[in-house]
Amino acid sequence: MASAELVRLPAREVVRLLAEREISPLEAIDAAIARIEAVDPDVNAVPTLCIERARQHARRLETALPPEDRRGWLAGLPILVKDLTDVAGVRTTYGSPIFAEHVPERSDILVERLEARGAIVLGKTNTPEFGAGANTFNEVFGATRNPWNTALTCGGSSGGSAVALATGMAWLATGSDLGGSLRTPAAFCAVVGLRPSPGRVPHGPSLTPFQTLSVEGPMARDVRDLALFLDAMSGFDPRDPLSFESGRSSFTDAVGWPPKLRRVAFSPDLGGITPVDPEIAHICREAAGRFRELGADMVENAPDLSPAVEAFTVLRAEHFVTARAPLLEAHRARLKPEVVWNIEHGLRLTAADIGRAERLRAAMLQNTVRFFEDHDLLLCPAAVVPPFPVEIRWIEELAGHRFPSYVDWLTITYAITLTSCPAISVPCGFTANGLPVGLQIVAPLRGEALLLRAAVAFEDLIGIASQLPIDPRAG
Amino acid sequence: MASAELVRLPAREVVRLLAEREISPLEAIDAAIARIEAVDPDVNAVPTLCIERARQHARRLETALPPEDRRGWLAGLPILVKDLTDVAGVRTTYGSPIFAEHVPERSDILVERLEARGAIVLGKTNTPEFGAGANTFNEVFGATRNPWNTALTCGGSSGGSAVALATGMAWLATGSDLGGSLRTPAAFCAVVGLRPSPGRVPHGPSLTPFQTLSVEGPMARDVRDLALFLDAMSGFDPRDPLSFESGRSSFTDAVGWPPKLRRVAFSPDLGGITPVDPEIAHICREAAGRFRELGADMVENAPDLSPAVEAFTVLRAEHFVTARAPLLEAHRARLKPEVVWNIEHGLRLTAADIGRAERLRAAMLQNTVRFFEDHDLLLCPAAVVPPFPVEIRWIEELAGHRFPSYVDWLTITYAITLTSCPAISVPCGFTANGLPVGLQIVAPLRGEALLLRAAVAFEDLIGIASQLPIDPRAG
Repeated sequence: MASAELVRLPAREVVRLLAEREISPLEAIDAAIARIEAVDPDVNAVPTLCIERARQHARRLETALPPEDRRGWLAGLPILVKDLTDVAGVRTTYGSPIFAEHVPERSDILVERLEARGAIVLGKTNTPEFGAGANTFNEVFGATRNPWNTALTCGGSSGGSAVALATGMAWLATGSDLGGSLRTPAAFCAVVGLRPSPGRVPHGPSLTPFQTLSVEGPMARDVRDLALFLDAMSGFDPRDPLSFESGRSSFTDAVGWPPKLRRVAFSPDLGGITPVDPEIAHICREAAGRFRELGADMVENAPDLSPAVEAFTVLRAEHFVTARAPLLEAHRARLKPEVVWNIEHGLRLTAADIGRAERLRAAMLQNTVRFFEDHDLLLCPAAVVPPFPVEIRWIEELAGHRFPSYVDWLTITYAITLTSCPAISVPCGFTANGLPVGLQIVAPLRGEALLLRAAVAFEDLIGIASQLPIDPRAG
Repeated sequence: MASAELVRLPAREVVRLLAEREISPLEAIDAAIARIEAVDPDVNAVPTLCIERARQHARRLETALPPEDRRGWLAGLPILVKDLTDVAGVRTTYGSPIFAEHVPERSDILVERLEARGAIVLGKTNTPEFGAGANTFNEVFGATRNPWNTALTCGGSSGGSAVALATGMAWLATGSDLGGSLRTPAAFCAVVGLRPSPGRVPHGPSLTPFQTLSVEGPMARDVRDLALFLDAMSGFDPRDPLSFESGRSSFTDAVGWPPKLRRVAFSPDLGGITPVDPEIAHICREAAGRFRELGADMVENAPDLSPAVEAFTVLRAEHFVTARAPLLEAHRARLKPEVVWNIEHGLRLTAADIGRAERLRAAMLQNTVRFFEDHDLLLCPAAVVPPFPVEIRWIEELAGHRFPSYVDWLTITYAITLTSCPAISVPCGFTANGLPVGLQIVAPLRGEALLLRAAVAFEDLIGIASQLPIDPRAG
C-alpha cells in the first residue's frame, strides 16, 4: 500500500492490517516518517523523533506473538507521545530549557503500558513549558502552528499531538489535561481528545501521585480510533495509587452500540460562568440540537459550577507549587513568566485558601452528581473562542470580560476538570473563517463508555471526521 | 437458638442461618439487644440504638427476595455503624457537642450500600470528637472502655466498634481510618480492623471527596468475617469519585486459598521511625516469625518512610482545615483542644509547606512500590504501646522519646496511611498483663485479596480469634 494512502487510513484499519501482517510495523513507521518530513516543517508539531528506537522495537515485534487478550492491542502501530511524558532513552524536555537535553532512563508507566500493548513510539510532540497554558510554544522548540491556518495557534497544551493527528503525521497520539489540554487543541484542530476519569489511565511515577486534576489521555482523528487507544492505555497499575481495573467490556465494543439517551443538557457558557464568542455559541448550540436525532430530549441547563474560577485558581497554583516550586528556587530565570507567576501565586496561598477551594470543589462535585441524576450528558463548547494568532500568548479579554489570568479563558474546560467527570471534544462545525469548532461532551463520573458511544453517534451525524487528515499547505 | 449462643457465632455463620431462614432478622436483633443491655453499661461502646428502625427494616427484609448476586449478602444481619457516619433518621453526633442532637436526613453512601446488601443498622458506636485521636472519649457520651480491662482505653477512633465486636454486642461494625483508626482499636481489643485502599469502600457525600488519607472500612471478630463485610461494602458508586469496581473474585472466596508467600519483611519500628515498647516489639517479632510456617522467607526490612512525621503532620492539618475550619469560626469554645490545635496548626501552613509534604509523600510512595517489588508483605506492630489508662488523653512519651503531638504515637499506622497501601491489624498475642497485641500486616497497593489470605492463614496459626467474644466483667 502506498505510504500516502496509509497515513490517511484510520488507526483501527492500520492496526487490522498490521495484525493480519498485510503490512509490517516498519512500513507503517516509514509512512509516518515520510508524512512528517513532508508536513512538519510547516507546523512544528513533532520536534523529536526516535526512528532507530522505533525500528528496533518494530523488528522485535515482528517476531513476537500477539497477546491472548487483544483488548487495545495496537499490533506495531507507530504513535507519538506528548513531550511532558518520559520515554526511556529519548529526549524529553517538558518544553523547558532547563530540561532541553534531558534523556530519561525509564519510561513513564503510560508509555510502558502502550508499548506492552503493541504501540511503537516514533517521536515526541510539542507542548508549552510544563504544559502551562493552551498555546503550544516554548523556548526549546518554538511554536506549533494550526494546520487549518498556520498563522494561528493550535491550542494546547497537547497541541503537538493534535496537529500531528490533523495532518496525518500520526494515527494516535497521547496528551494530558489539567485545565483542558486534551480538549482545547482537539477543538482547535478538528480532532478528538478525551479527558478520562482520574485513575482510568495509569501514569507516573508522578510528582503528584495523589492528585486528581492532571490526567493523561488519548487523542485521535475520530472517536472509534480514540476508543481503541483508550483500551490500550486503561487499567490498573500497581505503581499508580489512583488507577483502577478496566470494566468487562472494551471501549471498542462499547462504541458498537447506540447510546440510550433520554435527556441531554446544553449550555453555551456552563450556566454563565464564562463569556463565549457568539459564533462559537451558535455553532455549538446548532450541533448540540442534533442530539434530538439520537432520541434525546434537549434542555438548556448546567450544574452550578459557579465556584470554578476561585477553586481552580487556588488548586492549580497549589499543584504548581507541589510539582515545580523546587525549580523556581534553582532556575527562576529560565522559567517562562506564566510559570513563575503561577508558582509565586501558589506560594502566597495559605492552608485556609486551599481548604476553602477544596470545599468549593466538593460542592461542585455534589452539584454535578445531582445534575446527572436527571441528565444523561452535558454539552457545551470545548473552547470559547476560535483559534487566534499564534503570537498572542493567551486570551486576555472576551466580550468585555477581562480574564484574571492566562488560564481563565479555559474556564469552560477546567470547570469540568474540577468535577472529575470524563469529557471529550468532538469536531462540530467551522466558523465563517473556516476554523474548527469543538463540542465538549461531559458524562457522569466514570462514564467513558456512554461518553464514547454518544460521541460516535454524534460524529456520525456531523460527518467532519471523514475530512481528516488535512494538509497545512492546502489550509 | 438461644440468644447467648447466637451472639458468639461468627458473622458468616449467622448470615448462613439468616439466609436459610433458620433464624429471622428480628431474632438476631433481639439477641444483639440483649447482649448490649447486659454488657454495654460496663464499656459504653454503643451510645445510640435505633431499635424501631432496625425492626422495621427487618420486617421489610423478611418478605424480600435475596439478590441474584450473593457477594457480600448479609441477609438481615444487624450491624453497628461508627458515629462519624450518617444514618438517615438516627442521631449522628460525630462525637461533638456541636452535633449532639444532629439527625441526618440521608444516610452515607456506605450505609446505603450495606443496607442494600442486607445489613440492618442497629446502632451507632462511640468515637472521639470528629475521630481526632486514638482514645475514644467525647463530651457527648464520655469514654468507651477496654473490655480486657475497663480501667484502660480501647484505642480509637473506631473504639466503640472494636469494643462492640470484642464483647459480642455486634457481629460486624464499621470504622474509618485516617491515622490508624481501624487498626489501633482492633489491636487494643483483639479484633480485626482493615484499612482498605482509598476508593475500595465508597462513602460520602464527603467534605473531602478527593483526598486519599481518610477511608471507611470493616471491623470484625476474625478475618473470615471481615472478608465477608468487605465484600458487602466494596465497589464503585457514581457519587464517590475515587471509588472503583470490585475485582472478579470476592474476598470471601479469596480467603479460601492459602497465600503464596516468598519473602515477608518484619520491622518492629518501620525502619526506626518510631519508638516502640520492648514487650510489644518482642511479641510482634515472635508472631511475625510464624510466617515461616506459611512458607515465607523472613527478613528484617522496611521501605524508607522517614518523612512520615513531617508529611503527615502537614497533610493531616490541611485535611482538618478543609473539613473543619468553618466549625472553628462558628464554635471554637465547643471544640476539644486537640481539634482546635489541629485546625490552628493547619491555618498557619502555607502552600509551600503543603507542596513539600506532598513531595515527601510521593517519595514514600515510590519507596514503598520498590519495596514491594522484592517483598510480598510488610509486618510491624499495629500499636507501639499496650492499652493505657483511659484518663490519659494520648501517649506523650515513650522510651525517652517525646512525641510532638497527640497523633505521633500513631506513626506506625499513619506512615502506612501515607503510602495508600491496605493494612490490617490481627491479634497476635498478649502482654504479661494479659492485654491484647495486634500485628499490622501491610500489602502492596490494592492488595486486599493477598492481605486477607495472609491474615487468615496467620490467624489460623495464632488461634486467638476463637477466644472471642469476651465478657468485660470476666476480664
